[in-house]
Amino acid sequence: MKAAVLEHPLTISIKSLERPVPNAGEVLIKITAVGLCGSDVHYYEHGKIGRFVVEKPIILGHEAAGEIVGIGEGVTSLSVGQRVAIEPGMTCGECEFCRDGTYNLCSEVEFLATPPYDGAFCEYVTMREEVVYPIPDSMSDETAALIEPFSVGLHAVRRGTLTEGETVIIMGMGPIGLMAAANARLAGASMIVAVDLEEKRLDMARQFGATHTVNLREGKLEEELAHITDGRGVDLALETAGHPDALRQAIQAVRRGGRVVIVGLPPVDEVSLPVPYMVDSELKLIGVFRYHHTYPDAIKLLSDGKVDITQMITGKYSLEETGAAFQAAIHDKANTLKMMIYPG
Amino acid sequence: MKAAVLEHPLTISIKSLERPVPNAGEVLIKITAVGLCGSDVHYYEHGKIGRFVVEKPIILGHEAAGEIVGIGEGVTSLSVGQRVAIEPGMTCGECEFCRDGTYNLCSEVEFLATPPYDGAFCEYVTMREEVVYPIPDSMSDETAALIEPFSVGLHAVRRGTLTEGETVIIMGMGPIGLMAAANARLAGASMIVAVDLEEKRLDMARQFGATHTVNLREGKLEEELAHITDGRGVDLALETAGHPDALRQAIQAVRRGGRVVIVGLPPVDEVSLPVPYMVDSELKLIGVFRYHHTYPDAIKLLSDGKVDITQMITGKYSLEETGAAFQAAIHDKANTLKMMIYPG
Amino acid sequence: MKAAVLEHPLTISIKSLERPVPNAGEVLIKITAVGLCGSDVHYYEHGKIGRFVVEKPIILGHEAAGEIVGIGEGVTSLSVGQRVAIEPGMTCGECEFCRDGTYNLCSEVEFLATPPYDGAFCEYVTMREEVVYPIPDSMSDETAALIEPFSVGLHAVRRGTLTEGETVIIMGMGPIGLMAAANARLAGASMIVAVDLEEKRLDMARQFGATHTVNLREGKLEEELAHITDGRGVDLALETAGHPDALRQAIQAVRRGGRVVIVGLPPVDEVSLPVPYMVDSELKLIGVFRYHHTYPDAIKLLSDGKVDITQMITGKYSLEETGAAFQAAIHDKANTLKMMIYPG
Amino acid sequence: MKAAVLEHPLTISIKSLERPVPNAGEVLIKITAVGLCGSDVHYYEHGKIGRFVVEKPIILGHEAAGEIVGIGEGVTSLSVGQRVAIEPGMTCGECEFCRDGTYNLCSEVEFLATPPYDGAFCEYVTMREEVVYPIPDSMSDETAALIEPFSVGLHAVRRGTLTEGETVIIMGMGPIGLMAAANARLAGASMIVAVDLEEKRLDMARQFGATHTVNLREGKLEEELAHITDGRGVDLALETAGHPDALRQAIQAVRRGGRVVIVGLPPVDEVSLPVPYMVDSELKLIGVFRYHHTYPDAIKLLSDGKVDITQMITGKYSLEETGAAFQAAIHDKANTLKMMIYPG
Repeated sequence: MKAAVLEHPLTISIKSLERPVPNAGEVLIKITAVGLCGSDVHYYEHGKIGRFVVEKPIILGHEAAGEIVGIGEGVTSLSVGQRVAIEPGMTCGECEFCRDGTYNLCSEVEFLATPPYDGAFCEYVTMREEVVYPIPDSMSDETAALIEPFSVGLHAVRRGTLTEGETVIIMGMGPIGLMAAANARLAGASMIVAVDLEEKRLDMARQFGATHTVNLREGKLEEELAHITDGRGVDLALETAGHPDALRQAIQAVRRGGRVVIVGLPPVDEVSLPVPYMVDSELKLIGVFRYHHTYPDAIKLLSDGKVDITQMITGKYSLEETGAAFQAAIHDKANTLKMMIYPG
Repeated sequence: MKAAVLEHPLTISIKSLERPVPNAGEVLIKITAVGLCGSDVHYYEHGKIGRFVVEKPIILGHEAAGEIVGIGEGVTSLSVGQRVAIEPGMTCGECEFCRDGTYNLCSEVEFLATPPYDGAFCEYVTMREEVVYPIPDSMSDETAALIEPFSVGLHAVRRGTLTEGETVIIMGMGPIGLMAAANARLAGASMIVAVDLEEKRLDMARQFGATHTVNLREGKLEEELAHITDGRGVDLALETAGHPDALRQAIQAVRRGGRVVIVGLPPVDEVSLPVPYMVDSELKLIGVFRYHHTYPDAIKLLSDGKVDITQMITGKYSLEETGAAFQAAIHDKANTLKMMIYPG
Repeated sequence: MKAAVLEHPLTISIKSLERPVPNAGEVLIKITAVGLCGSDVHYYEHGKIGRFVVEKPIILGHEAAGEIVGIGEGVTSLSVGQRVAIEPGMTCGECEFCRDGTYNLCSEVEFLATPPYDGAFCEYVTMREEVVYPIPDSMSDETAALIEPFSVGLHAVRRGTLTEGETVIIMGMGPIGLMAAANARLAGASMIVAVDLEEKRLDMARQFGATHTVNLREGKLEEELAHITDGRGVDLALETAGHPDALRQAIQAVRRGGRVVIVGLPPVDEVSLPVPYMVDSELKLIGVFRYHHTYPDAIKLLSDGKVDITQMITGKYSLEETGAAFQAAIHDKANTLKMMIYPG
Repeated sequence: MKAAVLEHPLTISIKSLERPVPNAGEVLIKITAVGLCGSDVHYYEHGKIGRFVVEKPIILGHEAAGEIVGIGEGVTSLSVGQRVAIEPGMTCGECEFCRDGTYNLCSEVEFLATPPYDGAFCEYVTMREEVVYPIPDSMSDETAALIEPFSVGLHAVRRGTLTEGETVIIMGMGPIGLMAAANARLAGASMIVAVDLEEKRLDMARQFGATHTVNLREGKLEEELAHITDGRGVDLALETAGHPDALRQAIQAVRRGGRVVIVGLPPVDEVSLPVPYMVDSELKLIGVFRYHHTYPDAIKLLSDGKVDITQMITGKYSLEETGAAFQAAIHDKANTLKMMIYPG
């Protein structure tokens, strides 16, 4: 099979590799669509993210949809021909976190495109049965692939215990910020304030459910938010920009007793935070890491197409063009949101 | 001022009464629209609901909107001319429930149209400042009045801890069932199965967010639900029909570990329930009584008109026609959902 | 090995069976102590409990402790010679409940002494690694065996969301009621009202943490509770008696907004409950079925011996005397609480 | 009446002031015992804490017990002669926080000994009825006074959602750390690791429920904790030391998915925190500010004397000796924990 292999930072080659064979409990999936994630771009440029270091050639891509073309021994819940969404993490099933349902915290997870595990910018992958979810005919390949970043937004909203009628601010309107907005809307937020530096992204935010937008280039967030919320602040902030300033703004944006969910990883080891203020205001800071139990719900939520998350797609590429997709992501940040690769 | 007074069961007269004067902390409100609730009809027919007995002539009506026309001493947050929604319960502020935020459980509450307190089928009422909520220009009087039954649905969904992506069944598609559906949709339910005996109500249910409908006259609920949910059952049931059979069906409709919220009061003292099954399946039965902290959220949720709860209005009456509205509610159940009275 | 086999209702024979051999992932355990549970007695007398029917000879007993004497292939976390407590349910690990941590709801569970699975009234059992928990030297075999019923109390208190300072009533002071009391005390209840018909059990209840006792033969619960709680009722009721009247009393015992956890299975299909009262008072009824994630916590809680749950042991028997233990349980209910069998 | 008045930083004079008269809804209380809090000492030394600045002479002291000696108009729940504990904050009752039960966040609160409000280092105070709680004869004046700092620990444990069986670390064993330990024990922690620099405080910690102690002068916390918890970390950290390093250690001490409650205010505007680590580990940081709804529960929990919080008292002073108490608190930190003033 063909695969787009990252051989060195900034160097992707199309290689011919042996097609994988499903072991017992696994299925073989022909990949139809894969999204390009910011983490893929980071590995492509820098060769590592935190504790995860690319030490040998790797196939990137973990936002994947496909079709089942082979079945391993003992697989009973799936069959050849089914179109599927792929949850990219396979966990141990035995640690305390797997046992109590927070399997996103399993330290033995094998996660697509996280070193040393290969991803899905290739024609075929094998996955364990329990992370492969059939999708209805009404769902496009692209939507199925984008369930992965949608899951990040869903998990963030759940960890933030957003309840119907609450007000939300979202820092950063990249793909994760947009997915956070879509989920905040679905979960019943009565106000969604989207914040970014790019007007194009704020336009897109309105498509994803934002009721108000603030362009940081044009106004002071604090004043605009005071105006929008009558001085009260919002109940919940979702920080997706991955920037220390955005986190500090999120902390200032919530009301007393409010919550700040941190989704974006700032590219520094430490961030200086106003701890006495956070204590005095009885705030909660809530870290989120990936997601758990989102795929079945996401499939149901997105099947009827009323929420169309494929609007964020700004570029489509064949497998051979994978390198070009990465280059566009790096060099045209203002105009790109989500690029899709089509290996099939 | 004119008022529609229930003098005896089934007898409403239009009387001329003294216009009330706001005490300190109160405002005087000219009523513009009031919904007719099932509880009003029950008092009209039977003169009592449970422990609440009509012992002297009473003004009914507690789903009310109006305009502030007078201000009592010390009122600072409101001003003459504001259009408002009225939360009909004024609580003591001092009991353990008021102090901990579940003020709907306050036993000293003065609730409009619950004996011995008069309601809003009249031209003017006085209310304490803290239960009067200004509404935006974009909100109609009818919507403002219907925030009251909408609140019942919102509180039911909150007590049921519905989270984004879960599946829901709602028993009964009267006004409260429809409001439950609207709120389940807003709160992110990925499937809403509406159940009723009347096709017209099921049609309306789809307007309010139902994704599936089951007409009990046409099919067996158990089989239909097994088909819809692949044999799993739903996460949450909302029983609004107020019928013992509906409650038993709701209990059978949820998955293991599911929740059943009881909104409708069955007209009997006791209901026979399958307790061993409920224990074995680790179900939760959750009673709900009115609501708390819903008005500000409801106003934000309903301001943009995307969710139009006035679709359930099936009749409009002047104050003088209040008796006729009650008669229609009793004698034409199949065609009536929500009647509005316009005293202004 | 020797085993006490229930051949027909009321007939237990000591048989010589083949010693089991641990499969991959399993360990072989020499049983040191096993408690006799009410469910064992029920199978002994009636041959079934609800949907579980004894259709062939069965070994009862599921409250077990022992010592590891053999290790199956691939077992890495345990070793020969370790003293252990045994969680008696082995679940599928793949269903939605196993995946989200509520594995007590897994419908594929293999549970000791629940037909068709054999239990631990025998010399050796094999168990999967993940349900076998090493215990410290300071913990007795009896305590380790009784972690099973202790877990029922712990899970009941957790499902009831008992928080420090709340007040509790417990209906029934059999072994499960006592374990509920011990856990309510550990979890910070500021008042524990124990209710039973037998003075001996109420005496024992005080050893397990009850701060007040009510003997139903001597007084009216309603009046006594009103006296104890100043008319308020308690925050939480734990029904362990398995009797319809006890459940109805529990419902009346809690304050508005209170919770009733149902642990005991009433021996009837349906129970008549005051549903309108439950709704009006915004109560929650919460079923509990077994437990999940209790063993590690229970071991830590019981290791220092400050809470001594072995006080409830009223009889000790060799494996050969298993039949006599059952007879005592049936014929001397007033004087027996927990009988222990010692196969080792 | 006599009062100890802080006239300038470090200068307390005993003054003769007019005895206050209870307004409607208030009671007059003769003060029997008042604890000296770290915040009192901070005002005494520095004249301000954060946004609260002493701008005129002030009476400090907010951990107070007394006896009712006068009753204002309309007070019905209290009577002369009752011994009482005093909750020192009187809130507005009308803001969103008061309405929803988190009244500790009310911005209009009048809090004893927080500028510009006087406190209780004097013979008499008037308080509103709803913050005055009768205590049983079995409770000492000192215990009643110390319900205030006990409440801080109780609220911290609740906000941290500590559940029975979880493991806890507490940073700092001053009075608040000790109260946190007492509450963690009451709430069912199965392990409480107390951390401090002073051996005397760690000795005291064991009296308050600590199961393990770590003296930071003698060992590395990380290694000791890894040893104690088998490398897992604890479920919950309670930071009471008010030191940036202690907060960073608390963050490192919890397991993946763990919670860190911040009680102590670090004396800096910002603290540098390992945000990427917190996100990757899905931690929660939870600020706490004072408490709400703790007094009735604390009175029930402490009435039977099984938990004796007066063990932390290291000095007793008359009202005239108030200045000496402050001096001891400043100059003998190693030997002082809680000083009590007895105005009565």
